[in-house]
Amino acid sequence: MFEIGIVQRTSKTPFHESIVKAGVKGFTVYNHTLLPTYFESPEADYWYLINNVSMWDVSCERQVEIMGPDAFKLVTLMTPRNISKCKVGQGKYVPIVDENGGMINDPILLRLGNDHFWLSIADTDVLLWAKGLALGYGLDVTICNPDVSPMAIQGPNADKVCAKLLGEWIYNLKFFWFREYDLDGIPLIVQRSGWSKQGGLELYLRDGSQGDRLWQMVEEAGKEFDIKPGSPSTIERIENGLLSYGSDMTIENNPFEVGLGEYCDLEQEADFIGKVALQRIKAEGITQKMVGVVLPDVEIKGISSWCKLTDQTGEDAGKITSLTYSPRLKKTIAFAIVPMAYTTIDTQLVAQMPEGDVVAIVQEVPFV
Amino acid sequence: MFEIGIVQRTSKTPFHESIVKAGVKGFTVYNHTLLPTYFESPEADYWYLINNVSMWDVSCERQVEIMGPDAFKLVTLMTPRNISKCKVGQGKYVPIVDENGGMINDPILLRLGNDHFWLSIADTDVLLWAKGLALGYGLDVTICNPDVSPMAIQGPNADKVCAKLLGEWIYNLKFFWFREYDLDGIPLIVQRSGWSKQGGLELYLRDGSQGDRLWQMVEEAGKEFDIKPGSPSTIERIENGLLSYGSDMTIENNPFEVGLGEYCDLEQEADFIGKVALQRIKAEGITQKMVGVVLPDVEIKGISSWCKLTDQTGEDAGKITSLTYSPRLKKTIAFAIVPMAYTTIDTQLVAQMPEGDVVAIVQEVPFV
Repeated sequence: MFEIGIVQRTSKTPFHESIVKAGVKGFTVYNHTLLPTYFESPEADYWYLINNVSMWDVSCERQVEIMGPDAFKLVTLMTPRNISKCKVGQGKYVPIVDENGGMINDPILLRLGNDHFWLSIADTDVLLWAKGLALGYGLDVTICNPDVSPMAIQGPNADKVCAKLLGEWIYNLKFFWFREYDLDGIPLIVQRSGWSKQGGLELYLRDGSQGDRLWQMVEEAGKEFDIKPGSPSTIERIENGLLSYGSDMTIENNPFEVGLGEYCDLEQEADFIGKVALQRIKAEGITQKMVGVVLPDVEIKGISSWCKLTDQTGEDAGKITSLTYSPRLKKTIAFAIVPMAYTTIDTQLVAQMPEGDVVAIVQEVPFV
Repeated sequence: MFEIGIVQRTSKTPFHESIVKAGVKGFTVYNHTLLPTYFESPEADYWYLINNVSMWDVSCERQVEIMGPDAFKLVTLMTPRNISKCKVGQGKYVPIVDENGGMINDPILLRLGNDHFWLSIADTDVLLWAKGLALGYGLDVTICNPDVSPMAIQGPNADKVCAKLLGEWIYNLKFFWFREYDLDGIPLIVQRSGWSKQGGLELYLRDGSQGDRLWQMVEEAGKEFDIKPGSPSTIERIENGLLSYGSDMTIENNPFEVGLGEYCDLEQEADFIGKVALQRIKAEGITQKMVGVVLPDVEIKGISSWCKLTDQTGEDAGKITSLTYSPRLKKTIAFAIVPMAYTTIDTQLVAQMPEGDVVAIVQEVPFV
């Protein structure tokens, strides 16, 4: 076990005092911001999420705010997804790629106004990408990292907690849609969203000075539902096929090979960065692909890991990108990127774990 | 004490096995990469650096490689520093600013060839900034994050270790100059550099598979000098006035207010991003400035912290950005950004520490 060094560069969040009081035991750094990794234990936190409801400090999901006459033009340029019909109040999952079709990020786009967008980002400085593009292309926009800190409420009882806190209207929010809400003087954007498949909302806090107050109000509303503090669960997200940028894909990967082809509209009228590259990749076909693998002979507890894969003859067969033990499935599961020859279900590979070679069998994702 | 969660997104370095074997106790994340924070203790590590020699895994200093016919044009555009006379084999400290003059990063530029540059970066994705600019401005360059992992050898005996390992020629390397070197099949760039004021070199490893071998060779060469594993020391760098991007400056700060005005040539012929903004800021004068402060009444051990400042009447007087106890000076010292009214030496302010209000007295930097 290693200690995390905390300095101002790795920002504390508006909820920091509250999560320390709630017993946070570990952190990682995500978008230059502290992200809690677990409270009771990774597995205990996981079960609260699966069976009930948990509240997460995900301030590290920073917002890249794009405003101005050319805001829609810039956002259109930045993603292969067709966003021409995205309405004010609507959110969309939008891969962001470079001119080679390489993944730069996979944020949620929120359209707050006709000329007003947020990109709720994964762990790269999309702010700099957007600003560089805007400057180079001479677009009339202002781009910043506003005072916005999301908190997620996730799990089968998440809606009940949110309804008690915010009102019954939250039941009518469609997936990724959002609305503004003033919670007793705390300015929020409330969105049906969250980095789990257990359902729930994200509350985007728009005033960092109110973090601890918001945390307490959610805690209070959640008391009767036995809400627990938690954080994005590596176990739950791998079970359910949710990818993590930086682990499961990088700028070296195109959207097609990591299963994001459905978000790329190569026929749309609009030009976007990487259009030509993605058209070529699609025409030529991908050479590797994200698959699931099961490792029947090892039992990794808690924390995830990764390693290289070979086939039975010792030939390179790609790599495991995220790995966990699934308490529900009672086996070790992982994501892997493998050459096309090894993508067939039940293909038997060899994972070069630090502890030695073990069997890895290709499976469908999601696992549950 | 909080645990750090390690996943593939927060990359292990080519030296990872070696530093674990050497007894690393903590990490932070810097440029998506694990950076060791201490081995024996922050203070013990500091004394080895001050008195002798230590070896650091600073792979987190990622390189942004810019190559191609327009490489020089792009690099010139990116920094207010006049680099028109930068020679092949030379390095320079180059602030990078946006169109408003806001600090984006403060890397070391290395000119490896006429059309071949590295930016050895602090903790933001300069890769995305450079790529966005290149695309928008239509520049003919290729930009990537190459397989390069720096290791630093720092301290008064660093040169002796490096001379033994690499040869006497290292004594002739001028500050920030570098040369290519093949160390028994390990491809290196060797530069007089390093994030301390204790002197020494950085070895840029150009083949990640050789990390543990290089570590061992440095360890072996350093044995007779009693070399110790270490990492950039918060204590030493604050004592000596070395700023840390993300803590001591952000995109909200211009170079003039954080003491980097000398690196901005506003008279140069070349156009660079932020030129007009910096000319305006210089003409109007800055409104706040980086200063040193001493906190005579508190003794913070080891880890740094930060907080708000007020004047004696309770008026806002800026903030402390980095803070440490100096074992040499036997007092707590810090960097602060304060409004111009409070920049005079010996001005007495109030630091709102978590433990309560304490006296903070403005001092000159460096402290030693």
